[in-house]
Amino acid sequence: MKCSTTLTENSPPLYEQLPQRLFTRREVIPPRNDVLWRIQRGAVRALTWSEDGTYITLGYWGSGDIIGYPLSKVKPYQIECLTSVEANIVPHHLWHEDIDALLCHIQQAEELLSIIHCKPICLRLWQFLMWLGEKFGRDVEQGKLIDLNVTHQEIAEVLNTTRVTVTRLLQQFEEEGKLSRAKRRIILVLPSNLKNYRS
Amino acid sequence: MKCSTTLTENSPPLYEQLPQRLFTRREVIPPRNDVLWRIQRGAVRALTWSEDGTYITLGYWGSGDIIGYPLSKVKPYQIECLTSVEANIVPHHLWHEDIDALLCHIQQAEELLSIIHCKPICLRLWQFLMWLGEKFGRDVEQGKLIDLNVTHQEIAEVLNTTRVTVTRLLQQFEEEGKLSRAKRRIILVLPSNLKNYRS
Repeated sequence: MKCSTTLTENSPPLYEQLPQRLFTRREVIPPRNDVLWRIQRGAVRALTWSEDGTYITLGYWGSGDIIGYPLSKVKPYQIECLTSVEANIVPHHLWHEDIDALLCHIQQAEELLSIIHCKPICLRLWQFLMWLGEKFGRDVEQGKLIDLNVTHQEIAEVLNTTRVTVTRLLQQFEEEGKLSRAKRRIILVLPSNLKNYRS
Repeated sequence: MKCSTTLTENSPPLYEQLPQRLFTRREVIPPRNDVLWRIQRGAVRALTWSEDGTYITLGYWGSGDIIGYPLSKVKPYQIECLTSVEANIVPHHLWHEDIDALLCHIQQAEELLSIIHCKPICLRLWQFLMWLGEKFGRDVEQGKLIDLNVTHQEIAEVLNTTRVTVTRLLQQFEEEGKLSRAKRRIILVLPSNLKNYRS
């Protein structure tokens, strides 16, 4: 689900006047409990980890989304940049100005939760890729390009499965012509593109 | 996580003037896209189902929580009362008045997501019971009483596991003295109570 366009068009121009910060890939958003952040460009993931060091990804957020440590009670908790990121600081007194962004956060978190419940795992992975594609993807000739530099291990950490399973299923999807891969880029071959191939 | 106390104390008395509705156990909250509901008393669950009819529980909400169909993009989607419920209608122009309740919704949804990622399953179930106990439980002499009339099947639908596994693990917890059961009531024997038993 892409909320960014709607939000940018409808939301007050309050973000333009707010201080902006730039982050590089893999940088951690500073753990401040007094501010939220509005992502202008780029992608982040929210994560926690268990005592044995297993990472668990709790959310993927992108352009137009509101994120921040006040939105979480999970400990430990970290928001990590998956790409370079531009974000505005939203101070506490402005949080109520953009209800739509908070509703959108709730909706997206729930969508991801429903995907994690999908069975079998191949359906779960496919639905996740479609969700990523819709949220972060770019239309290219062959289909929808997901260019988040995401590893198989990271996908496993979202979907509650193993890296080995993700690798095997991505290979299977590729053999079935559902997607193509180059390095860590994934291109989803969507039905409209399949039709083009056939014609 | 119990947000209700804080919210009731800090939030504006806006809810007192809002129309109230009563629902009975198993009743479905009307699917209105123009209003949110603030639960005054009782417990509900949000759920969806897959094509093969498997239910997936997406959230448990109680006193002080804000719920409603505008918070979801998942289809199909239903909010079902687990107990009798009293709730206030919150019309659209008042949604921004209670930011804390929306933040609390986000935090709780994420907590549940992190629980669903717990491995092994026995830890997942135990953490879920502790979470339910904290949110809906009542202190009794033996520990924390969870009186939600929840079935093993329903627990399986939250935790992405099977009814058989839930039944087996609850029995195991009972044999280990971690909880006691009477019909569908569960009493968690918490460390403080264990200490009392030993002294």
